Amino acid sequence: MAETVSPAFAAPGSKAEIEEGERLSPKFDADGLITAVAVDADDGTVLMVAHMNAQALALTIETGEAHYFSRSRGRLWKKGEESGHLQKLVELRVDCDQDAVVMRVRMGGTGAACHTGHRSCFFRSVPLGTAPTPELTLTVNDGGKLFDPAQVYGTPKKTDTPRF
Amino acid sequence: MAETVSPAFAAPGSKAEIEEGERLSPKFDADGLITAVAVDADDGTVLMVAHMNAQALALTIETGEAHYFSRSRGRLWKKGEESGHLQKLVELRVDCDQDAVVMRVRMGGTGAACHTGHRSCFFRSVPLGTAPTPELTLTVNDGGKLFDPAQVYGTPKKTDTPRF
Repeated sequence: MAETVSPAFAAPGSKAEIEEGERLSPKFDADGLITAVAVDADDGTVLMVAHMNAQALALTIETGEAHYFSRSRGRLWKKGEESGHLQKLVELRVDCDQDAVVMRVRMGGTGAACHTGHRSCFFRSVPLGTAPTPELTLTVNDGGKLFDPAQVYGTPKKTDTPRF
Repeated sequence: MAETVSPAFAAPGSKAEIEEGERLSPKFDADGLITAVAVDADDGTVLMVAHMNAQALALTIETGEAHYFSRSRGRLWKKGEESGHLQKLVELRVDCDQDAVVMRVRMGGTGAACHTGHRSCFFRSVPLGTAPTPELTLTVNDGGKLFDPAQVYGTPKKTDTPRF
């Protein structure tokens, strides 16, 4: 797996240093990305999972506002730049092998993190206990939408990539 | 991005069906993987972020115990198979574009999800508010280790890949 070293971050040391040391040396994947998880700072609800490149991570650290790299749009993206649903960081944590970060955030706007209008992108539950088949039925399992995407983003075109 | 359809899951429908419909049609990436986030079912702490292929996801759904695909070891992996740190699912959720799942779990064993001995893989905080440099210093920010990895896994070799 390719590893990119950004001038903003430390070069990776030994396995022990990466996993338990005090230097930030993110392990970007072959596409130059790490995984970023945003959770509500107050109740811990997982709001969304997306990706960051080195620039997005550096901007997130510097500004305290979540920046991502959109794989579908192929560009840096400040969360909420279009919708007003900014994510202000209370805390940023990195995992042992430094290929993922968790952000504890406070949401701006309506409080919805998902472009569908739901508070969390994870608004559907999967039934457990039986081998899955194509007929498996998801259950919408949240308090409903907090905003109307058509009002915020306009009416989506069929060809639109995900907006979040 | 390549999309793999597993016989266990529904073929992807329209964007609206994938994002808001009731069918599970995971969007596996070019390596056949989705992102899986495990959080504590009781207090919401993010314990770890890893990956699942179609088989790992299907087994997780069927058994209610977390299975992953280890990129470093190149194989299916039942969490806790070696350490006893099983993850029993209370709930499984899928996100809007179906390339990530969140599992609310109860940990077996000592309650530690991380192979380092920490409860969570995200045991280090990153300072915010200044542009990052290689000298940025992480802070260990949890209650310490819950087990001694050397006792559970044996003394690691320098060449070992991450065990979690």
